[in-house]
Amino acid sequence: MRIMMSGFGTVGQGFAEVLQLRKDFFKERYGKEVKIVCVMDSSSYISDPSGLSPSELLERKKTTGKVGTEIYQDPLRVMDSTEYDLLVEVSPTDIKTGGVGLKNTRYALECGKDVITVNKGPLALNFCELVAIAKKNGCKFRFEGSVGGAMPIINLCRENLVGERISSIRGIFNGTCNFILSKMDNGQSFEQALKEAQQMGYAEADPTNDIEGYDSACKIVILANSLFRRSVTFSDVKITGISAITSEAISLAASNNMVIRLIGEVSPNKLEVSPRLIPRGHPLSITGTLNAAQMVTDLAGPITISGKGAGRIETASAILSDLVSIMDDRKEREG
Amino acid sequence: MRIMMSGFGTVGQGFAEVLQLRKDFFKERYGKEVKIVCVMDSSSYISDPSGLSPSELLERKKTTGKVGTEIYQDPLRVMDSTEYDLLVEVSPTDIKTGGVGLKNTRYALECGKDVITVNKGPLALNFCELVAIAKKNGCKFRFEGSVGGAMPIINLCRENLVGERISSIRGIFNGTCNFILSKMDNGQSFEQALKEAQQMGYAEADPTNDIEGYDSACKIVILANSLFRRSVTFSDVKITGISAITSEAISLAASNNMVIRLIGEVSPNKLEVSPRLIPRGHPLSITGTLNAAQMVTDLAGPITISGKGAGRIETASAILSDLVSIMDDRKEREG
Repeated sequence: MRIMMSGFGTVGQGFAEVLQLRKDFFKERYGKEVKIVCVMDSSSYISDPSGLSPSELLERKKTTGKVGTEIYQDPLRVMDSTEYDLLVEVSPTDIKTGGVGLKNTRYALECGKDVITVNKGPLALNFCELVAIAKKNGCKFRFEGSVGGAMPIINLCRENLVGERISSIRGIFNGTCNFILSKMDNGQSFEQALKEAQQMGYAEADPTNDIEGYDSACKIVILANSLFRRSVTFSDVKITGISAITSEAISLAASNNMVIRLIGEVSPNKLEVSPRLIPRGHPLSITGTLNAAQMVTDLAGPITISGKGAGRIETASAILSDLVSIMDDRKEREG
Repeated sequence: MRIMMSGFGTVGQGFAEVLQLRKDFFKERYGKEVKIVCVMDSSSYISDPSGLSPSELLERKKTTGKVGTEIYQDPLRVMDSTEYDLLVEVSPTDIKTGGVGLKNTRYALECGKDVITVNKGPLALNFCELVAIAKKNGCKFRFEGSVGGAMPIINLCRENLVGERISSIRGIFNGTCNFILSKMDNGQSFEQALKEAQQMGYAEADPTNDIEGYDSACKIVILANSLFRRSVTFSDVKITGISAITSEAISLAASNNMVIRLIGEVSPNKLEVSPRLIPRGHPLSITGTLNAAQMVTDLAGPITISGKGAGRIETASAILSDLVSIMDDRKEREG
């Protein structure tokens, strides 16, 4: 299994580390190695058909700021010049145009390569197009890490719950907002809680994308398209963020044994992100930076999954689960 | 796919109903029918190689108290006289000897048949023996519904989290105890809460098995053996139930923003069921009859799943998920 990586930021570096940690696992399970044969970051690249050392990649990125030794102009030419089986697309999210992630994902699928991505931009904007290209070319296209980080929601629904009819999904899809709301449960004001989230590194200097619900909206678009066969994009989501939530609203909720959480919902008549009242003790009343999602099914009833919604190794673990799933499929097909 | 059913109580009847509901699903996904060719309850049986009608089975059980039209002495002779591919074992749990469930499961596996069971007795007592027989004869042996009802914990760990190292599982594995403790959170005494659980049909007239933690203990034995490759039985579990929990203890916990929950734990040094303090807002602080389990993994961090731990259709949905998984495997192998 020869891997091309597009992007070598936090998650890309985490994935390189995970591959190194799971070297023996792959050998035992598949009798073969998983090799990174090429990595691109925003301007540099490096390739080696015999496999690049993850620790050398990490070291060079750390010391020089660049993963590669060569400069490139067009990522597609780098992809053309490399023999690989699967693209791991982890370049920065561009929620307006899809950016280089969209370009690379589309091109790899057109060339018949499998793709694993955690990049919400291309998925929120061009999901149906990408799935159609993958289908036409017989490629696997997986994106578990794009929703809820380490929380295995997509594969859970597609594999374990495949015999169920899922009528709706409601969940907490942004750990930063959940952290802020949890702090407000403990008496902090919105401003104090946001500041603490920024100090802890959970929120960006410009927190708009998180607190206005845009990040959560991307994720429910991905869920709507992938699990409900809808054909929606970012602009179809009705979005209300948490910046207008007051301490008074939190107290009023608490006096009724409730908490306020930013909930994304996909159901036949709804595609919405908004603050909602959740009873204490409900599986979606969780605190901290966790993500959670509740699927309402016709036979099993409500099933809730939760896990870390972000983090270097945590998000990389979702790429690992997609990779294992793709390699299991190949193993089955090869008998 | 020809199914033999052993047992036609609550869960067995639920499964017959689920098969009827998913008739089209099986035709679409596999291009073939799933037929029940034989059903036994405690004394009667009925078989038909062309398939029995679930609604007729349900109707006869309801009106006559028996699923079958013939009386049998030895269930193994009934199994010998029927051509089938897979045994669905849903006879009553016998936690002391394994009972008829153990006998039938062992025999089916020895005859090279796949088995799906939700019966905790054989699994808590003879797990390793049964897995060894299945392995020797190349059979599938699945038991998702035996732990946590509709909550897909075993398949989640074996499939989605297969690339993770799971160091421990802690969870709520008995909905009756969780219901009682949730009611105590709201100010009821243990006795009042137990009485309400009995009135609601959640607790039996003799509630010992639930409230003393024995049911939870069976489940962690199954998890220890199936997910941690341990070789333990019921008597290896250190068990403390909830009957000694006082309202004072609940109040003291609440004043520290905690709840008390009956937690089963499997970890390298622990095999234990006991009441524990859980912070409010933690994924295991849930209320009501839900079950929940948190897996601590090395890469993804903590992953928590929750769902209905009991119920006719809910538990049957776990059998459905095992059946789909087995049929997917067969489809792959047949190309």
